[in-house]
Amino acid sequence: MKRIFVLHGPNLNLLGEREPEVYGSLTLAELNDRLQAEAGRLGLRVEAFQSNHEGELIDRIHRARREAAGIIINPGALTHYSVALRDALAACRLPVVEVHLSNIHAREAFRSRSVVAPVCRGQINGFGPHSYLLALHWFAWWLKEGGKGQ
Amino acid sequence: MKRIFVLHGPNLNLLGEREPEVYGSLTLAELNDRLQAEAGRLGLRVEAFQSNHEGELIDRIHRARREAAGIIINPGALTHYSVALRDALAACRLPVVEVHLSNIHAREAFRSRSVVAPVCRGQINGFGPHSYLLALHWFAWWLKEGGKGQ
Amino acid sequence: MKRIFVLHGPNLNLLGEREPEVYGSLTLAELNDRLQAEAGRLGLRVEAFQSNHEGELIDRIHRARREAAGIIINPGALTHYSVALRDALAACRLPVVEVHLSNIHAREAFRSRSVVAPVCRGQINGFGPHSYLLALHWFAWWLKEGGKGQ
Amino acid sequence: MKRIFVLHGPNLNLLGEREPEVYGSLTLAELNDRLQAEAGRLGLRVEAFQSNHEGELIDRIHRARREAAGIIINPGALTHYSVALRDALAACRLPVVEVHLSNIHAREAFRSRSVVAPVCRGQINGFGPHSYLLALHWFAWWLKEGGKGQ
Amino acid sequence: MKRIFVLHGPNLNLLGEREPEVYGSLTLAELNDRLQAEAGRLGLRVEAFQSNHEGELIDRIHRARREAAGIIINPGALTHYSVALRDALAACRLPVVEVHLSNIHAREAFRSRSVVAPVCRGQINGFGPHSYLLALHWFAWWLKEGGKGQ
Amino acid sequence: MKRIFVLHGPNLNLLGEREPEVYGSLTLAELNDRLQAEAGRLGLRVEAFQSNHEGELIDRIHRARREAAGIIINPGALTHYSVALRDALAACRLPVVEVHLSNIHAREAFRSRSVVAPVCRGQINGFGPHSYLLALHWFAWWLKEGGKGQ
Amino acid sequence: MKRIFVLHGPNLNLLGEREPEVYGSLTLAELNDRLQAEAGRLGLRVEAFQSNHEGELIDRIHRARREAAGIIINPGALTHYSVALRDALAACRLPVVEVHLSNIHAREAFRSRSVVAPVCRGQINGFGPHSYLLALHWFAWWLKEGGKGQ
Amino acid sequence: MKRIFVLHGPNLNLLGEREPEVYGSLTLAELNDRLQAEAGRLGLRVEAFQSNHEGELIDRIHRARREAAGIIINPGALTHYSVALRDALAACRLPVVEVHLSNIHAREAFRSRSVVAPVCRGQINGFGPHSYLLALHWFAWWLKEGGKGQ
Amino acid sequence: MKRIFVLHGPNLNLLGEREPEVYGSLTLAELNDRLQAEAGRLGLRVEAFQSNHEGELIDRIHRARREAAGIIINPGALTHYSVALRDALAACRLPVVEVHLSNIHAREAFRSRSVVAPVCRGQINGFGPHSYLLALHWFAWWLKEGGKGQ
Amino acid sequence: MKRIFVLHGPNLNLLGEREPEVYGSLTLAELNDRLQAEAGRLGLRVEAFQSNHEGELIDRIHRARREAAGIIINPGALTHYSVALRDALAACRLPVVEVHLSNIHAREAFRSRSVVAPVCRGQINGFGPHSYLLALHWFAWWLKEGGKGQ
Amino acid sequence: MKRIFVLHGPNLNLLGEREPEVYGSLTLAELNDRLQAEAGRLGLRVEAFQSNHEGELIDRIHRARREAAGIIINPGALTHYSVALRDALAACRLPVVEVHLSNIHAREAFRSRSVVAPVCRGQINGFGPHSYLLALHWFAWWLKEGGKGQ
Amino acid sequence: MKRIFVLHGPNLNLLGEREPEVYGSLTLAELNDRLQAEAGRLGLRVEAFQSNHEGELIDRIHRARREAAGIIINPGALTHYSVALRDALAACRLPVVEVHLSNIHAREAFRSRSVVAPVCRGQINGFGPHSYLLALHWFAWWLKEGGKGQ
Repeated sequence: MKRIFVLHGPNLNLLGEREPEVYGSLTLAELNDRLQAEAGRLGLRVEAFQSNHEGELIDRIHRARREAAGIIINPGALTHYSVALRDALAACRLPVVEVHLSNIHAREAFRSRSVVAPVCRGQINGFGPHSYLLALHWFAWWLKEGGKGQ
Repeated sequence: MKRIFVLHGPNLNLLGEREPEVYGSLTLAELNDRLQAEAGRLGLRVEAFQSNHEGELIDRIHRARREAAGIIINPGALTHYSVALRDALAACRLPVVEVHLSNIHAREAFRSRSVVAPVCRGQINGFGPHSYLLALHWFAWWLKEGGKGQ
Repeated sequence: MKRIFVLHGPNLNLLGEREPEVYGSLTLAELNDRLQAEAGRLGLRVEAFQSNHEGELIDRIHRARREAAGIIINPGALTHYSVALRDALAACRLPVVEVHLSNIHAREAFRSRSVVAPVCRGQINGFGPHSYLLALHWFAWWLKEGGKGQ
Repeated sequence: MKRIFVLHGPNLNLLGEREPEVYGSLTLAELNDRLQAEAGRLGLRVEAFQSNHEGELIDRIHRARREAAGIIINPGALTHYSVALRDALAACRLPVVEVHLSNIHAREAFRSRSVVAPVCRGQINGFGPHSYLLALHWFAWWLKEGGKGQ
Repeated sequence: MKRIFVLHGPNLNLLGEREPEVYGSLTLAELNDRLQAEAGRLGLRVEAFQSNHEGELIDRIHRARREAAGIIINPGALTHYSVALRDALAACRLPVVEVHLSNIHAREAFRSRSVVAPVCRGQINGFGPHSYLLALHWFAWWLKEGGKGQ
Repeated sequence: MKRIFVLHGPNLNLLGEREPEVYGSLTLAELNDRLQAEAGRLGLRVEAFQSNHEGELIDRIHRARREAAGIIINPGALTHYSVALRDALAACRLPVVEVHLSNIHAREAFRSRSVVAPVCRGQINGFGPHSYLLALHWFAWWLKEGGKGQ
Repeated sequence: MKRIFVLHGPNLNLLGEREPEVYGSLTLAELNDRLQAEAGRLGLRVEAFQSNHEGELIDRIHRARREAAGIIINPGALTHYSVALRDALAACRLPVVEVHLSNIHAREAFRSRSVVAPVCRGQINGFGPHSYLLALHWFAWWLKEGGKGQ
Repeated sequence: MKRIFVLHGPNLNLLGEREPEVYGSLTLAELNDRLQAEAGRLGLRVEAFQSNHEGELIDRIHRARREAAGIIINPGALTHYSVALRDALAACRLPVVEVHLSNIHAREAFRSRSVVAPVCRGQINGFGPHSYLLALHWFAWWLKEGGKGQ
Repeated sequence: MKRIFVLHGPNLNLLGEREPEVYGSLTLAELNDRLQAEAGRLGLRVEAFQSNHEGELIDRIHRARREAAGIIINPGALTHYSVALRDALAACRLPVVEVHLSNIHAREAFRSRSVVAPVCRGQINGFGPHSYLLALHWFAWWLKEGGKGQ
Repeated sequence: MKRIFVLHGPNLNLLGEREPEVYGSLTLAELNDRLQAEAGRLGLRVEAFQSNHEGELIDRIHRARREAAGIIINPGALTHYSVALRDALAACRLPVVEVHLSNIHAREAFRSRSVVAPVCRGQINGFGPHSYLLALHWFAWWLKEGGKGQ
Repeated sequence: MKRIFVLHGPNLNLLGEREPEVYGSLTLAELNDRLQAEAGRLGLRVEAFQSNHEGELIDRIHRARREAAGIIINPGALTHYSVALRDALAACRLPVVEVHLSNIHAREAFRSRSVVAPVCRGQINGFGPHSYLLALHWFAWWLKEGGKGQ
Repeated sequence: MKRIFVLHGPNLNLLGEREPEVYGSLTLAELNDRLQAEAGRLGLRVEAFQSNHEGELIDRIHRARREAAGIIINPGALTHYSVALRDALAACRLPVVEVHLSNIHAREAFRSRSVVAPVCRGQINGFGPHSYLLALHWFAWWLKEGGKGQ
């Protein structure tokens, strides 16, 4: 069964507590459970990881090269400046889907710029936890179609 | 059965012919069929419309206010400058999902800026025809959950 | 009796329905009636026209060259990018008054820039329907004074 | 009888002498007389004041809080940089109409930016002395309608 | 006999009337006749089309893919913002020559930027009606040399 | 007993009346009293001055060179453009503390730029009246330590 | 007794050694002792923490939500780019005071921009170790006044 | 005997005291004496005026229209933002020479931009008091040549 | 027989050798021969000159004032920064046509900006050697029509 | 024997695997061996360290102050934003050479900006592993010459 | 007798012929004669040199280091981009006065930026040939005062 | 024996005299001798050339295509604007190493931008004369390895 790494960036451990009017009331654990369940339905396995440390996220992405079929990443605030994360994602040569809970284009101006987007397969934002679920669905389709392209 | 308007902007009538290395070889008719089929499976109905005229797209969005439960729009090149389209989408007060076939962040710099994104619920780009399908799935979930929020 | 063309740009057909907290609850028909009535009092005739199509507005401006003594235009969102509208207004060589219902300087930053303003006689914004009425009054004065200058 | 403060900023004392091809040949005294007359017809009283000193204009705006129903201001060159004037206008919590004799969008680029516009009710520019008269008319309407809103 | 589409953008129907000091006194009909005559001498046929509607120009460019050997386009004001026109020209995969009557670099700053230029074969501007005639000559040479390249 | 000049810029005379949700309900007189009391406890004397006139503030700063041991200044809106104030502060060669009632980084973008900051010893903002009190405390410490440095 | 977290960002462990002409000769341990002593006098307790790791600072801020009444933070160089730190501070929903030893507006241009400032209660910079002490004093006052507001 | 107004802007009353390494040790009174003496040798009369108030400088410029043959102005810090001063100088329709003691291009970047320069006859900077003397010499030549031109 | 100066800027002596995929395989000598032949057919004489020295090109342009009826110039890389070349072309008061072999708008961003374009009659780029030939044709037409205008 | 710290930033552990067409096929271990060998020949000792964690690199730089004679650093992606790294390098007061494997000026625009460069002795980029070797050679020369200056 | 080098940049050999409405009708030879005469009266000798070649101007500046007491330079168009000229002037360590015939701040925007100004003693512009004469006068004063400073 | 062209741009003939605190006290002749000696040790031959003329440097680069194995160039001030030099270097299709004596990132902001860097193999700056020597060493290695790549 194919493994998808789901990476959550800084502050996402506070999910459900932090600004619920923006991010919803689901906790990170609940979100991961929901992803695991949906993955099961789609014949996939999810391995979730959260860190407030840029370096740990990069280490995990490096590991993904051998252990995963793809990456779903919500880089949190690192989205806007972590070229190191971008380089790690580009180097792993796996399909990567960038997701965001909120609509990053409807908040402060600096939030609409993603330095990692250019090295990802695609980007999904604005759908709360569904942003992750849609990414999972794409992986299911993509693997069914042979997992090639771009 | 809830109706979702799927709007395709300028030049998308050429789908399958124009730069297939970027946009794939599926024609617009085939894409619409595929959306209709998937919508059926999800208990939705799709009404697709393509135009190279900004004004016609706006007229259609106005009509959507009474006839649709939501809008999926790929504004094509209008993404980058049509404030009129943005205002129409904001005025219709329906949930709108902006989709793009290609990863708009991995092309010319001006393509990564969307003037309509701030008034949409979310944005999905980079997954080819799957960008539309994922949007449909979100509508299915969202309607099942009562169609509220944000 | 002198005719003044009143042109309403994209989405103004929704007046009274769209964001009433910003644009008020008067419908476009009611606004046009009010303009017609005021025009009558001032010895003028108003010919109102609304379109969501940049091209139709341009066609109408071209016609104005022979049929009108002046133009009152609320270009809506086209204010911010339609150089074609600007060129049409410059080419018609009539006095043009640009009006806006809302104060365009108290909203999103991009709304305060008008590409048509430099070719208009003047600009009136922020007074709701009164923006149009004030423009009518100016035309009445200007025609009384012989309709010259700039 | 309601009082409207009419404030003229730096160099407007030269009206009629300075660059008449841009600002017309009416002197400031004549303009004030014309405003007084029109105000009378509209059931209003005008109190005009001109100063080349930013501080004096601010002092007068502060006084307006108790003595006037509204303000018509042509800030002259202060339009482009006096944040202090802007703050004074915002603090007085009266409706303010910003007027300009010339079309500020058809001159040097820096003239089209107004730092006071975002705190005014609306802006009227390009109609020579009529810019002031139109502002008076708006106050007449607004007071007749109960003087609320925004 | 090879057909060349000659497309005239917004406001070019006013040619000969609008700002003759900038654009000359030749009408659009006379210009088209002159192009037809010259084309005849060069063994080509010209099909001219003018529209104030971005969408109609795009429709015509799509048709060109099957009916023409090349396109000469003066996009008028659309030059400066119509990414949709640019995408249509790129998609038609024909050689395109962008022409302008006036020297777009000797007017307002915003006129020197063309969003369509990067997808055209070349650009000719500043020679009045001769800009079009020179473009025709290039097509004649290019076809004689086998119509390849770039 | 060492004297500290406390200078309040334009519109601060309205303190307690103007936008109390931003600036609090303390009046300027009350603020000055509170500063005087605290200064007494710290072995200092405060001389407060408010003006809406840039020139009067500059005159007062010049006087400070001979009469004061330091300056606490809230330049109000002049913060953002008065290079003349900056030059006066630099010329007086006294330690200057810039204070603001509100957090200038959490308001309109232009408010976070201070042209006087580079010539001040330090900046304290966001603590309401306490911003001034903290500045007083610093002066007490600094004088106790011999009043040198930077 | 209320606890205040004092967080020192990257390179502040070198305090007293690194560029003493800019940052003074007090070591970090001495500074912390001085803060502890002053806190004692004010009826507060200080818990100091330094790290060169953005992630560790974020982890500590998360902990503060349950263990502290407020945060004093000198983010060091992270001030200028760490949106992750900003989000952590915003998420902790405690009053935060940003402090800097040096006047960040009198050094390289990039140092005057703080990405964390908009989510802090206030900012104090330029007073060397006193910047921290003043922040402590504010907390003492603020707690005495009931610890509300903003 | 022709009169030349010499206007000194904000902070120039401190000449000789303020930053003598930049501005020299000559006091303003000494500078004015030296100008008066040189003017006498050239058959001119100098009337010098200094103010820290923008408004007083404008008033004086207005008076110059009737009383002076020309203006030498060192606007001090107002150079960089006082559009009101610029408009006053433009309105007086006299030849104006802008002078600066220091080389404004060899200091902070913002000092090299003068908003008044475009309406002056010429600019002389960098020569200390000689900047004024050179301006006087030009007036002597210009008056000898009949005082026309440009 | 009228003489046209054809000026080739820096590096154009390498034509045919340098990046033939961009500039084609024709050498400069061959290009000049082809221009001479075409000129003959059009009743003109061409005098070609190449230099890698900005100064020599300027000297030649100065000579053109007496010896030529017009100038065709490909300034090469000087296009993008040589204001001196621009001033020389403006000073010679002859009609000038700027040509480029490649489409300067389809390469590095800095190549699309021409500092000489505003002082030329027109610009032709993107047609390889034909860019020069089209320029010659324009001169032939223009001289036949009397050589006036603009 | 003098020790040189060689620091490799994020993702450099992937050397030899990641984008070999850009970075070559040498692994990090092989590179370090090669540096060690060359250092031996030059009478130096190399201590190499790689981390994906900004904080660990900073910790190591702090240690270098006591243990090394100089630093060779390839900050990887941190080059472009890590002001914390810059401050650490400035604080260590050792000569630092910044190296890059690829030519950072021939890639994406953002890669040519280095925030650490201003505090380094020099920069060497574009020579693959030789960039490091050249840096070693410089250290050998510099130490031979007494290791002074800047 | 002290020698002053007077350097004229590109296109100044056309003086008197080129745009006399901007630059006047005096030829370069006449200007040089006038400078020589004035220099004589002041006890100086002028050595004038004009070139359209940046390199020749630099060579001449290098020679000035041994042969001249100062330099008056009108760099013409090189003013705006020749960093090489700037470096030559900085390297010669002589006092340099930059002069311009026209007011460079009242023309195209790019003309008001001088890359050489920061390394000159001062700048004089806008006085036609008098700009040079004033520079000569300054040298006379400066030499009389001992030729020191800055 | 392979020949390396060493090109020195404008003002480098002053080496040893000009700003020795920035550039050191070695003369250009001494530098060339040192390069020649080192080249001999490495089995290479150096041909050095200095010019203050952009055109002469370009001519020399063209000659290098046939006579040299590589180029070491210190373009001096031309680094920052000479696109012509860039095009010449790109056209010669030899490996080019750009060197600078000083750290161009630690001086005026404009010095850190090199228009030639993108077409060079690599860049070495900040090491004084050693910058050239390191470049020579790279050539020695590169030739030993067969002189291919990138």
